[in-house]
Amino acid sequence: MVEQHSEGGRYELVYWPFLQGRGEFVRLVLEDAGAPYVDVARLPQSQGGGVQAVLDMRRDAAPGLRAFAPPYLRAGDVVLGQTAVICDWLAARHGLAGANEVQRLAARQLMLTILDVVDEAHDTHHPVASSLYFEDQRDAAIAAARAFTRERLPEWLDYFETIAPRGGHWLLGDRASYVDLALFQLVEGLEYAFPAAMARHASRAPAVLAVRDRVRARPRIASYLDSPRRLPFNEDGVFRHYPELDC
Amino acid sequence: MVEQHSEGGRYELVYWPFLQGRGEFVRLVLEDAGAPYVDVARLPQSQGGGVQAVLDMRRDAAPGLRAFAPPYLRAGDVVLGQTAVICDWLAARHGLAGANEVQRLAARQLMLTILDVVDEAHDTHHPVASSLYFEDQRDAAIAAARAFTRERLPEWLDYFETIAPRGGHWLLGDRASYVDLALFQLVEGLEYAFPAAMARHASRAPAVLAVRDRVRARPRIASYLDSPRRLPFNEDGVFRHYPELDC
Repeated sequence: MVEQHSEGGRYELVYWPFLQGRGEFVRLVLEDAGAPYVDVARLPQSQGGGVQAVLDMRRDAAPGLRAFAPPYLRAGDVVLGQTAVICDWLAARHGLAGANEVQRLAARQLMLTILDVVDEAHDTHHPVASSLYFEDQRDAAIAAARAFTRERLPEWLDYFETIAPRGGHWLLGDRASYVDLALFQLVEGLEYAFPAAMARHASRAPAVLAVRDRVRARPRIASYLDSPRRLPFNEDGVFRHYPELDC
Repeated sequence: MVEQHSEGGRYELVYWPFLQGRGEFVRLVLEDAGAPYVDVARLPQSQGGGVQAVLDMRRDAAPGLRAFAPPYLRAGDVVLGQTAVICDWLAARHGLAGANEVQRLAARQLMLTILDVVDEAHDTHHPVASSLYFEDQRDAAIAAARAFTRERLPEWLDYFETIAPRGGHWLLGDRASYVDLALFQLVEGLEYAFPAAMARHASRAPAVLAVRDRVRARPRIASYLDSPRRLPFNEDGVFRHYPELDC
């Protein structure tokens, strides 16, 4: 554990307890930083955990701005929403947001771009409405997945490949940052959801895959991935494997 | 015009020349700040304008990080992508990003939340793929619009109403910021795209509509809206009016 950075003792992440989802981008920053945190909703309900913890945050103003949806991060008086804002703020406190203002701006742009891909990947299985079951939008999902895996995925991989580092470095330069962690999660998620399509396109993006491998080998990340704290990918998260969508 | 803030003389916005889209959020900040700028792609092609200007930015690394998609902002050596990043950076230089760090964090969260709604509104007319014509995804679009106008729109309006100010103020407090401008644009866009649904739900969000009205009355914004620089809403932008989707 690194020194204590949270005013309140530990960071408190509030996110759905049964899936990786967008909360995983925050978990990865906390884990790589070695920051002390509680994944609040994964505590037993008797200790304030469970889905109710998420619903309470969604309803309450708490101090600060009420955010529309999880993940939320509490650190003393600071309460943050929006995955990109949480990761940027947290990473800056732990030396994972770039070495200067130019790098920090680059990190913010890359993070939003990575989250754009996450949204598109999500929308392949829920193209019509998040409130409908997959089965009720299956035909549209198949059409959406076809466009995603054949047109968008190669475009995205080509884009990230042009900005990925060569020769053992990180997206922002010499130092790893939260956008490397986010790119790791994106690639892992895409490979889980679309194994055939990713295998087909993998040769376009060797430098991207190398970043993923380097992140996976970081000691704290490796230890996290081996721990029960890392939830498995599943069909409740953002990245879902439905064989008919992997075309 | 306020004093010159751009290193290079004037800011250069590079965005599709025939639609408001996400670029409009940047235009509103530039206009409200009274900042000198060129809307590059709206220049004649002989002066470096036209769609080609956007395509060139998309391809070139330029100095700094290549961004995946427009809008882009150039200011001397600074080249930025991602609407939220551009607005935050630009607004901070012109006193439109909050008075302190807490407000700036709140602004970032709100901006991303507003852009989440923009994405959802876009996805009503292109639920399956951006690369397909509306006509080729019309049935899915009608289903998506139904979920949006009946479920999501009231949820979003209720959310913004809980954080909207009472009594003549702005989202962050006493001073207007770029998120007020963005909320204005969101409401205008939603009213253009979904006039019947917005009329049905308007009574949920009086404080939101009051912010919209106050933004519209800001002298530089009023002057901009009356000028030919303000492109009309149309069916190429993010907010599109298709009567069958306004349910």
